[in-house]
Amino acid sequence: MGYFRSNIEETAGYVPGFQPKEADVVKLNTNENPYPPSPQVLKALASIKADQLRRYPDPLGDQFRKAASEIHGVPADHIMCVNGGDELLAMAVRAFCDQQRPLAYPVPTYSLYPVLAKLQDCPAIEVPFDAEFNLPARLTTTGAALTIVCNPNAPSGSLIGREELASLADELDGVLLIDEAYVDFSPRHCLGLVKDFGNVIVLRTLSKGYSLAGLRFGYAIAQPSIIDGLLKVKDSYNVDALALALATAAIRDQAHHKEAVERIKAARQDLTQQLRDLGLEVRHSHSNFVLATCLPVGTASQQTSAADLHEKLASRQIYVRYFNLPGLTDKLRISVGTPEQNARLVEAVKEILGEQKKVG
Amino acid sequence: MGYFRSNIEETAGYVPGFQPKEADVVKLNTNENPYPPSPQVLKALASIKADQLRRYPDPLGDQFRKAASEIHGVPADHIMCVNGGDELLAMAVRAFCDQQRPLAYPVPTYSLYPVLAKLQDCPAIEVPFDAEFNLPARLTTTGAALTIVCNPNAPSGSLIGREELASLADELDGVLLIDEAYVDFSPRHCLGLVKDFGNVIVLRTLSKGYSLAGLRFGYAIAQPSIIDGLLKVKDSYNVDALALALATAAIRDQAHHKEAVERIKAARQDLTQQLRDLGLEVRHSHSNFVLATCLPVGTASQQTSAADLHEKLASRQIYVRYFNLPGLTDKLRISVGTPEQNARLVEAVKEILGEQKKVG
Repeated sequence: MGYFRSNIEETAGYVPGFQPKEADVVKLNTNENPYPPSPQVLKALASIKADQLRRYPDPLGDQFRKAASEIHGVPADHIMCVNGGDELLAMAVRAFCDQQRPLAYPVPTYSLYPVLAKLQDCPAIEVPFDAEFNLPARLTTTGAALTIVCNPNAPSGSLIGREELASLADELDGVLLIDEAYVDFSPRHCLGLVKDFGNVIVLRTLSKGYSLAGLRFGYAIAQPSIIDGLLKVKDSYNVDALALALATAAIRDQAHHKEAVERIKAARQDLTQQLRDLGLEVRHSHSNFVLATCLPVGTASQQTSAADLHEKLASRQIYVRYFNLPGLTDKLRISVGTPEQNARLVEAVKEILGEQKKVG
Repeated sequence: MGYFRSNIEETAGYVPGFQPKEADVVKLNTNENPYPPSPQVLKALASIKADQLRRYPDPLGDQFRKAASEIHGVPADHIMCVNGGDELLAMAVRAFCDQQRPLAYPVPTYSLYPVLAKLQDCPAIEVPFDAEFNLPARLTTTGAALTIVCNPNAPSGSLIGREELASLADELDGVLLIDEAYVDFSPRHCLGLVKDFGNVIVLRTLSKGYSLAGLRFGYAIAQPSIIDGLLKVKDSYNVDALALALATAAIRDQAHHKEAVERIKAARQDLTQQLRDLGLEVRHSHSNFVLATCLPVGTASQQTSAADLHEKLASRQIYVRYFNLPGLTDKLRISVGTPEQNARLVEAVKEILGEQKKVG
C-alpha cells in the first residue's frame, strides 16, 4: 500500500497558469483584471488593526454576507463566503460526489473540474458542447449528483440562456452549480434561479470583476438547505479577516466595479476586431478573455500554429494561455488587458504571423 | 437520493469556539495569542500594493518557503503553505484516507479529526490515552493510512517525547502527521523526524505563537515525495497574497516571536498556580492553554460543575471552552491570556465557586 490513495497517485493535479515574477510583462494568461481594485479596498486595507490579525475571523463572514445580501437582493443566509471560487468547487464535489455519485459538465470548460473528480475518486461525465457551445441536451440524463456549468464558459466565452439553465435545473435529480466566475462581463446572470430551484448553486468570485485575484474571495448563493450542508464541509475559518474586510469594501463600491467592467468590455470589442483583422477566428466573448483560433498558415499544422504562437509570444514576455486539450489545440485564450497591453499583443501576433508567412 | 452524500447528511460538522463580536470581553476560548503580532507584520501590511491584490498570488508561496527554510534549516521543497492548519488536516485526510484506508488518532484530542473522517467517509480509529496522556501502544497496530498525533496535545496540554514519536513513525505503514499547532509553547519539537522518516508530516501554524489567527496561515514540513502529493490536493491559490507577505514578515521576526512566547509561558505558570489555589486540578501544560478539572463541589455532579462554571463565566463575558465529550465533561480549557485577563478570570472563578459552596 502506498502512502497516497491510488486516485491521488494517478492524477497529475491541476496546473495553474504561469505566474511570472517580473512586473514588466504583458500578462494575459490568467484572466486577471488589468485595472486596480476600488480605492475603497485600499482604504479598508489601511484601516486594518493588529487585533483583526490576532483574533480568529468571523467563521461566516457576516459583514460580507450583509453587503452581498443588499446588493443582490437575496437573504444573507443564502450566502456562503469561500477562499476563492476554486474552494467552493472543491467543497461541492466533496459534498455531493463519490464513487456512486458522478460529476457531470459540458466540455471544453474549466480544466479544474476533471481534476476535482479525480481527487474525489468519483466518475466524471464529460458531455461535449456542439460547435456553437449550446447546452448539450444529454446533460439532463447523466444521473450525476452534481452538474457544473461554467457560464459564461471558459475558455469559449460563450453564454447559455437563463431559461435553458432553468429547464436543466428542473430536470436534474442532482445539484446544478452555475459557475459565474466571469458573469460580470456578461449581459445576463442566473441569480434568479436560486429562488426558484432548491438544487441550484451560483458561484461568484471577486477575482475578475473586482480586481481581487490576489485576495482569494468568492461566494456561493443557494437556498439555506444547500448552504447549511456546504458549511459542514467548509473549514471553520476558511476566509481570513483581511479578505473579509476588503471584499466587503469592494462589493459595496458598485460604481467603481461597473466602470472597470465597461472599460474591459470596450477593450474586448477592439481586441476581437484587431485579431480578426490579422486572420484569426475569434468568437464573440461574454467574458474578460477571447478565444482565438489560429487558422492554418502555409504548411504548418493547426496545432503547431497555436502552440508556436504561444511560445513565440512568451519569448517576448507576452503571456497568453494555451491548452493541450481536445478541441483547444488550435486555439489561444487571451485575457483582455488594457488597450496598451492589447496593442502590444496584437503587434506581436502580427509580427510573428508575418514571419511564419515568409517561412511558409 | 438526497442532494448530499449520506455521510455529509449524517454529520453535524465542526463547531468552532464562540467568536464574540464585542471587543471588551475576556476571550480565553480559542487559544489566540493575547499579544499583538510583530511590528514587522504591520509594516508589511502597510506596504501592500494594489497590484498584489489584482494579480493571482504565487501558488507555492516561495517567499515564505525561503524564509521558513532558513529558520528551520530544511530545504524549501520540504515546505507547503496552507490556509491555516485546518486546511492541511483536511488535505491530508483527502489524500491518504478513504473507506478502506482509516484515520487513527489518540483521544481526547482536537475535535476536528473525527469530523474530517466523517466528511471523507473513512473509518476513524480512536485510541484512548491513559490518564497520564502517554502515547498509546495500540496506535502502531491500527493499520491506519494516516495517524494524527497532536503534540503538544489539545486540550490536555500534554507532550509526547520525540523518541516515542520516532518509534511510532518507524513502525507505521502509513503516514504520521504530527500536529504541532501549539509547539511554540513547548520545550521540544519534532521537525528532526522529517529528515529521518519519509512518512512524517509536521504541521505548523502562525495562529498561536505568531498572533496571526486572523490571517489563516499554516505550513506543512515533510519530504518532497509527500509534499508533491499533497500539492495535487491543494487549491492552486490557497493562500492569498496578503497572508503570504505578512506570514513571511512574521516568521522573519524571531526575536518578537520568542519574547511573546516567554511572556505567555510565564503567565501560564501563574495561571496554573492560581487555579490550583482555588481547588481546581490543573495539569502542567506545554501549550498556550491549561486544562482545569472542576472537582466535585458539595452535592453537584462533576459534569454540572464544569458546564455550570463555563456558563456562569460566559454570563460575565469571560469565555473559556467546554467540551461535551468523553473524558472532558468535568474540565474547562482556558487559553492563557495577559496577566490582567487571567486575573479577571481567576477572580470570577473564585466568586462563582464561593457561591456554589454556599448553595451546597
